[in-house]
Amino acid sequence: MTERIREFLRNRRREGLSDGPCLVLDTEVVRENYQKFARALPNTRVFYAVKANPAPEVLSLLAKLGSCFDTASVVEIQLVLAAGATADRISFGNTIKKERDIARALELGVRLFAVDCEAEVEKIARAAEATGVDKAEVKVFCRILCDCVGAEWPLSRKFGCAPEMAIEVLEHAHRLGLEAYGVSFHVGSQQRNTEAWDAALGSAAAIFRECGLRGIQLSMVNLGGGFPTKYLKDIPAVEAYGESIFRALSKHFGNRLPETIIEPGRGMVGNAGVIEAEVVLVSKKSKDENEVRWVYLDIGKFGGLAETMDESIRYPIRTEHDEDRLAPCVLAGPTCDSADVLYEKEPYWLPISLEIGDKVLIEGTGAYTTTYASVAFNGFPPLKSYVI
Amino acid sequence: MTERIREFLRNRRREGLSDGPCLVLDTEVVRENYQKFARALPNTRVFYAVKANPAPEVLSLLAKLGSCFDTASVVEIQLVLAAGATADRISFGNTIKKERDIARALELGVRLFAVDCEAEVEKIARAAEATGVDKAEVKVFCRILCDCVGAEWPLSRKFGCAPEMAIEVLEHAHRLGLEAYGVSFHVGSQQRNTEAWDAALGSAAAIFRECGLRGIQLSMVNLGGGFPTKYLKDIPAVEAYGESIFRALSKHFGNRLPETIIEPGRGMVGNAGVIEAEVVLVSKKSKDENEVRWVYLDIGKFGGLAETMDESIRYPIRTEHDEDRLAPCVLAGPTCDSADVLYEKEPYWLPISLEIGDKVLIEGTGAYTTTYASVAFNGFPPLKSYVI
Repeated sequence: MTERIREFLRNRRREGLSDGPCLVLDTEVVRENYQKFARALPNTRVFYAVKANPAPEVLSLLAKLGSCFDTASVVEIQLVLAAGATADRISFGNTIKKERDIARALELGVRLFAVDCEAEVEKIARAAEATGVDKAEVKVFCRILCDCVGAEWPLSRKFGCAPEMAIEVLEHAHRLGLEAYGVSFHVGSQQRNTEAWDAALGSAAAIFRECGLRGIQLSMVNLGGGFPTKYLKDIPAVEAYGESIFRALSKHFGNRLPETIIEPGRGMVGNAGVIEAEVVLVSKKSKDENEVRWVYLDIGKFGGLAETMDESIRYPIRTEHDEDRLAPCVLAGPTCDSADVLYEKEPYWLPISLEIGDKVLIEGTGAYTTTYASVAFNGFPPLKSYVI
Repeated sequence: MTERIREFLRNRRREGLSDGPCLVLDTEVVRENYQKFARALPNTRVFYAVKANPAPEVLSLLAKLGSCFDTASVVEIQLVLAAGATADRISFGNTIKKERDIARALELGVRLFAVDCEAEVEKIARAAEATGVDKAEVKVFCRILCDCVGAEWPLSRKFGCAPEMAIEVLEHAHRLGLEAYGVSFHVGSQQRNTEAWDAALGSAAAIFRECGLRGIQLSMVNLGGGFPTKYLKDIPAVEAYGESIFRALSKHFGNRLPETIIEPGRGMVGNAGVIEAEVVLVSKKSKDENEVRWVYLDIGKFGGLAETMDESIRYPIRTEHDEDRLAPCVLAGPTCDSADVLYEKEPYWLPISLEIGDKVLIEGTGAYTTTYASVAFNGFPPLKSYVI
């Protein structure tokens, strides 16, 4: 929560515009975050994960600061180009791409692509041929599976392949005339263990060695994202991640360090945003004095807080009564969907004096909120967003 | 799947417009569904749950057929009015409403409101006073909790209160000068047990009696939704629900049957829609022959198939290879979100000959798809929708 956000919200209320929830994102915080990453990992290029928050103001700030960009779709590539970054600073990092989208990306100048199987390599080779792009200029990196111990949101096995298979995938790329460029992995979202990169870097180094034996010189290790943002619990400083990653790199690669890139998304914008919402209803389900309160906000799972799914992310919530006594409540969203409940298994503690009409501030909501919002579920409009 | 939908999709492909997933919804099926409900429950008014699919063509067809409408927000009320229904055919069925939204609804002519606590009753009374609406003309019904045994998607305790508390809530409404109109409940979504209404109707009848003793004559029982649509398993016919509900009504209310309304959403539009999607990738995570395939579609949890959450709803999926041998696969969406996996705990059986680029048809997707789609997650546009 910054003074700039506080002032923006004060003015918005004064002008009577505060009907409906909104996200306010402070670009000064994004700037600080970028600089922290750049300092903590000085030899590593930063590829901002655009999906975390694709607001044009965020992209153009990061483009000015020298950031590169990890994109998931052609639309995201176009947003990054429109924000002033050149195509050589863009990675098409989704391992699941339509061949025609690869072709469009190549036409837009993108030359760096993620894969995790041979079929995806073949799409890229065919798309390069179809668009007349020199295959030797097209770099592919293969994502490997890695366990996510220590992550608050461990990833499924959706992306990546077994390390042994990655060798075959990269060799296949090499055989088709593409540049077999490196290896990527992701240690899990909101990763609180700074040592989590060690095992995956061990696998990456083994792939580098085996590819070397087959005459293929890999260049790059993509360290992925996973850098946490502060919600309720404290998190290690970015510097601690930088040191730990550097130690693991040295341990596994010796003095032949590869190029490295990171893909922070949440870590870049999460703490830059605050959502202002309103209490719509406070009620109980029976007259039993001991029954827990239900507090209903005008934002829920379908309005931007999708990451409360399975109660994974617990956002800090500030109210105007925070000095009062707290009591547990079930926190829910405003839709007629019974799944639109934010915290119930582990009730959320809020002031007993909280009332209908009160504003609440949901902190750490700069990432994965605006774009997750549904188009118009129950007729509620998507989350408004202000970048200041 | 109807011949009209099949022809529409054929033409769309022929015109080269079939990039990206789309929903096609056949209004003829909606018409049949409405008529089935009207016939199966002849003395019950049908309030279509607009949130299931608010497409203007669906609303205007139902308005012409004489349907009433259950709405969740002011925007939905406006959509229904724009479709040609009058305000006396609209229920504001969300128990969680801002007071200013209640006032807007009153100004638009709506006079029927759901509540489940005294605070919500007070909002309605204040909003009526503020808008100069005669409180005696404003009807409120109180939602009660009921267990959801037999439902494929049991509801949380988010909506409704204990039956004993409902008596107090309705008495409070009466005391404030509103019309204490009745009781509502919801037996759970995709309810396959036709007897599920019995216990809740018992509670409703007890509330009618107790209110009667306190001098308050309730009039209406809102039987809610829960009527299933056919996914993979067979479901009972609408007629079976009608008969069972009528038996339960007679059992609990004797010859003093209340007015009744139902709120079908899924049951009205679910089977009217088919989503056409494309296979983006088929791959394995290792070279192990026994490993399950992953099949990635260009639609997933964030593009409209949110109801696959926890693998709750299993849609029937047709391909052009359905005569071939089937094998299990993990089915996933196209985004860079690791949670965007549709079926994994219970893998989905699809033809082994399924290939990248193949079209698939996801049936029973007329309800709870278009509006659940995210605004632009990963840069992917919301689900396209064609109503024919």
